Amino acid sequence: MNNQKWHETKIRIRYKDTDRMGVVYYGNYLTFFEVARAEFMRDLGLPYSQMESEGFSLAVIEAVAKYHANVGYDAVVTVKTMLSAPGKVRIRFDYRVFDEEGKLLVDGHTMHACIGENMKPKRIPPHLHKVVQENIST
Amino acid sequence: MNNQKWHETKIRIRYKDTDRMGVVYYGNYLTFFEVARAEFMRDLGLPYSQMESEGFSLAVIEAVAKYHANVGYDAVVTVKTMLSAPGKVRIRFDYRVFDEEGKLLVDGHTMHACIGENMKPKRIPPHLHKVVQENIST
Amino acid sequence: MNNQKWHETKIRIRYKDTDRMGVVYYGNYLTFFEVARAEFMRDLGLPYSQMESEGFSLAVIEAVAKYHANVGYDAVVTVKTMLSAPGKVRIRFDYRVFDEEGKLLVDGHTMHACIGENMKPKRIPPHLHKVVQENIST
Amino acid sequence: MNNQKWHETKIRIRYKDTDRMGVVYYGNYLTFFEVARAEFMRDLGLPYSQMESEGFSLAVIEAVAKYHANVGYDAVVTVKTMLSAPGKVRIRFDYRVFDEEGKLLVDGHTMHACIGENMKPKRIPPHLHKVVQENIST
Repeated sequence: MNNQKWHETKIRIRYKDTDRMGVVYYGNYLTFFEVARAEFMRDLGLPYSQMESEGFSLAVIEAVAKYHANVGYDAVVTVKTMLSAPGKVRIRFDYRVFDEEGKLLVDGHTMHACIGENMKPKRIPPHLHKVVQENIST
Repeated sequence: MNNQKWHETKIRIRYKDTDRMGVVYYGNYLTFFEVARAEFMRDLGLPYSQMESEGFSLAVIEAVAKYHANVGYDAVVTVKTMLSAPGKVRIRFDYRVFDEEGKLLVDGHTMHACIGENMKPKRIPPHLHKVVQENIST
Repeated sequence: MNNQKWHETKIRIRYKDTDRMGVVYYGNYLTFFEVARAEFMRDLGLPYSQMESEGFSLAVIEAVAKYHANVGYDAVVTVKTMLSAPGKVRIRFDYRVFDEEGKLLVDGHTMHACIGENMKPKRIPPHLHKVVQENIST
Repeated sequence: MNNQKWHETKIRIRYKDTDRMGVVYYGNYLTFFEVARAEFMRDLGLPYSQMESEGFSLAVIEAVAKYHANVGYDAVVTVKTMLSAPGKVRIRFDYRVFDEEGKLLVDGHTMHACIGENMKPKRIPPHLHKVVQENIST
């Protein structure tokens, strides 16, 4: 695995993100995954908002998260994100969330299907495919 | 005030609704207000989803909440909701949220402007205006 | 699989649950899973809030969701929930979310570890273990 | 009004923040207010997380938001935050949320009561009182 291929995004934990256990509610990591892949795509020169305005979306078809440790209010987590080799229609992001001491909190992935405005599967557009190919781990 | 005009909706507090204080996060009461006015409109025979499919929305232009007491996970709160005399474009809902012992937790209101699909103000449609008139407190 | 072992919970989609695609945001299904397992445990006579007041929690250690179809505002979804054979510390819930026509929207599971007030793993208490054993699919 | 007294925080709109109208859900502005006042307090040298670890909280007792215009996914909003002259127990933050072109989207305020670990009102501690006095608009 080529560590240079991991993109990093930092997110500060909001009071809203916590639950009565005093830590981040488990479902909120899927929001952090969203933020991380959006920042990754922006840094690749392909902001997701631009993709949608060009008529295609990356609908989530699978989300997996494994929880190893907790983190609470006001902590800053780092989400490392990686792209995998894309298929014709599918694309996968992997995530690892770390706390400020570098402890792994959560890892997981999301699988996406490229869809057009009619919500039907659509081939990943060439400029996205090319950028992903250039940025996958090998 | 005519108590018969208050509509009631019950909502159970989810783990997701709580924060690390162990109580409902303050912003989530605006979601409870949304649920309460949607159920009120449904019981008036005017589901909000139907209104939107007919081409108009009730955009929130003001939201106010006053917090008197807290409530935690798994409690069931009752949201009492009341309509006020509508203007040509505006409509107001008042809310009072109570716990299971009848203690007032939060009260507040939302003011809405009727807008069309172009996001411009639009006269409240006659069938909504009529139903509201029949259900306001006097 | 014994269908009698599936517990059912109905949830109405709130405006808050939707995103700009017009459908439920993918992460919110983890909240629906939470609601469904809480209602399941309540119907088993073991409300989760009572478990926590007795000093143990079921921390989520894994969450998986597969997305098959979308659903939008004001729809009522049915979450079917099933328990699996518990380990000494672990317990698993499986979920299937259906729309009003019975179409499968999302399925997935959560794996939990029983922990004590010190956040350390703790044997699942006998009364929970017994109830789970009696309610698993075989 | 002394503009130097307004603190600024930037927040990027997440997909999670939007609803099916394609804009930020009204209740989420209360989360943005939370983020803004936390960053303000951090910049004043009094991180809110530190306040809580010292045994007092600033419970919200009133929240008001007025909605003037909408903003959608991936926009960056600026939240300007200001402190008012504190009472013995109460403290008030005012907020103005602007889009990237400087258009006012939402304004509002939150009123807080200082409370101790027993959830009872507590005098605002001197170091907070002093910092607030030095940073209010006059």
